[in-house]
Amino acid sequence: MTSQAAAATSIDGEAGIIAVLRPLAAGFGGALGLADDCAQLTPAPGQDLVLKCDPVRAGVHFFADDDAADIAWKALAVNVSDLAAKSARPVAYLMALSFPEHPPRVWLERFAAGLGAAQEAFGIVLAGGDTDRAGGPLSITVTVIGEVPVGRMVRRAAAQVGDVLFVSGTLGDAAVGLQLRLDGQLAPRAGLDDQSARHLLGRYLRPAPRLGLKAALRNHARAAMDLSDGLAKDLGRMLAASSAAAGMTLGATVSAVDLPLSQPFRMALSCGVAAIADALAAGDDYEVLAAVPPNAADAYRAAAAAGGVEVTAIGTVEAARGLRIVDASGDEIDLGRTGYDHFSAAVDPSTSQQ
Amino acid sequence: MTSQAAAATSIDGEAGIIAVLRPLAAGFGGALGLADDCAQLTPAPGQDLVLKCDPVRAGVHFFADDDAADIAWKALAVNVSDLAAKSARPVAYLMALSFPEHPPRVWLERFAAGLGAAQEAFGIVLAGGDTDRAGGPLSITVTVIGEVPVGRMVRRAAAQVGDVLFVSGTLGDAAVGLQLRLDGQLAPRAGLDDQSARHLLGRYLRPAPRLGLKAALRNHARAAMDLSDGLAKDLGRMLAASSAAAGMTLGATVSAVDLPLSQPFRMALSCGVAAIADALAAGDDYEVLAAVPPNAADAYRAAAAAGGVEVTAIGTVEAARGLRIVDASGDEIDLGRTGYDHFSAAVDPSTSQQ
Repeated sequence: MTSQAAAATSIDGEAGIIAVLRPLAAGFGGALGLADDCAQLTPAPGQDLVLKCDPVRAGVHFFADDDAADIAWKALAVNVSDLAAKSARPVAYLMALSFPEHPPRVWLERFAAGLGAAQEAFGIVLAGGDTDRAGGPLSITVTVIGEVPVGRMVRRAAAQVGDVLFVSGTLGDAAVGLQLRLDGQLAPRAGLDDQSARHLLGRYLRPAPRLGLKAALRNHARAAMDLSDGLAKDLGRMLAASSAAAGMTLGATVSAVDLPLSQPFRMALSCGVAAIADALAAGDDYEVLAAVPPNAADAYRAAAAAGGVEVTAIGTVEAARGLRIVDASGDEIDLGRTGYDHFSAAVDPSTSQQ
Repeated sequence: MTSQAAAATSIDGEAGIIAVLRPLAAGFGGALGLADDCAQLTPAPGQDLVLKCDPVRAGVHFFADDDAADIAWKALAVNVSDLAAKSARPVAYLMALSFPEHPPRVWLERFAAGLGAAQEAFGIVLAGGDTDRAGGPLSITVTVIGEVPVGRMVRRAAAQVGDVLFVSGTLGDAAVGLQLRLDGQLAPRAGLDDQSARHLLGRYLRPAPRLGLKAALRNHARAAMDLSDGLAKDLGRMLAASSAAAGMTLGATVSAVDLPLSQPFRMALSCGVAAIADALAAGDDYEVLAAVPPNAADAYRAAAAAGGVEVTAIGTVEAARGLRIVDASGDEIDLGRTGYDHFSAAVDPSTSQQ
């Protein structure tokens, strides 16, 4: 495309961008049609607000040439996933968009379509935001607002000795999806069937926040968090926070054979495209890790199922330092890596999320 | 500095960064020590929440080599300024930090000191956030949460014909401050005294949200917004939003001779370092524009003074299209530029905020 043609189809002002996004705020009076400086929110009586702000950036969390609808979905999903893990009901979000250059109109419309689909799926609506243009990669900063009955937010730091560790859904799919996204020939070369490949890629591109766990978490879990940087690292964070809160050292034993794996992931394992470590230490799962008192484990499982989410017990919290991963015979597996850290990894997702 | 020495003094993990920032969250229980996925906020009964998310980025809103304490102050101030214009009381904020590389410890400590000073000045506290490392410039995305009594947020879109337009403080100082920041020799070369230069530079580096206007705005203003992109452009936005809300075309006449100018700005004018257009169309003022019914004008001025803020009447809202700037004889001045638009300007602040 010539630069003249590009200019003709790009949106060259903040007002133009806001006009494309305005319909996304139609369902929320406090958005004031995106025409005020701030959004206004009248909290429901008896509810706490739960707040989270987690940006995604091209080259780190997605690829600049991903479908704009997928980028939009993921930007919202990774934040709503945190609300889901806290048993909060999504209410509204703010979004700050930073573009490296004038966005093409068709791109922005796809982006708005992806946001619209995600809004409908998650029950959330745009309340306000900001757009600018800056050097550097496309950056999308979403701040989500959810609500829970006062005092009922499920904490990260509340795990106790003896609690059963549950994860929702299946682990490792997104890690394989990322490999497939990086190498379009990987699936055919390895003999992975199309359907499995599509499923795994979809898990990377369009994570699904586990909002169906709300009642199970609120009524039965002691502690919970979502898994964004890999089970090993995130469980380590839960144990560290819970240790600090409890004033004692907590650890856990996780059984590798109990890790929930999808059928497509198992296919990828058998083709050599996936490794069990993907389910233990790779990021982007957006499943929910919960610590549940043993006498509530059955009720947690049943309430999760009633919400349409399968959960799997993978281990137990212990009064010991560290995280032990054991195989079927109870022997410890050396993990060798502990998850994704933005400050100890390269920036390019082709190397950083291995 | 060798890269080895740099590594020794840089902070190489998210946990290390959070440890430096944690004291900033000490005053807010819902921050949960920055050790949970989300922040929790129990709204005060009878209050609406007011929300704003406005990122700042190196090369657009500040210079990468600015004092980290000034960068931090500005990142928070530009958002709190929006709360001030809505007559909201600041409550808490979330902050997403994106670093191009490992931040040096001394930089992060200066940054935290600047945030701490701003928190104390604005009466706000850190509730949560996120840090990552990405290609591109340093980016700081602050989401502020304020509160107002239910239904009392001062809107942008509520100006009416006959309303008196007031601005707080003085205009144009920051535009000159930016010029001084760009050219350290400008002041001595032009014969601008040190004290004036320091004042103007300070207005650019450390904007002061007009929180003292809270009662005046809430009790006497019909509409208000803060001035971030220049009076002409932002007043145009207020008129456009108010026109849409009122279902009629609103305009305004602003008297250039009534624009409030600081003594240092007048010195800069006389040295040829400033132009009157800086007070009309340059960004970064962070003063509050208010539309006040004529019969409330005296009360607005008095309430503002009681809050420690001087306000100046600069014009009137009219039933006519457009914004007219007139000189002392009532003749229209051709503005020639209408303020800062991120999508119609170059990215480098040395050229984009002229």
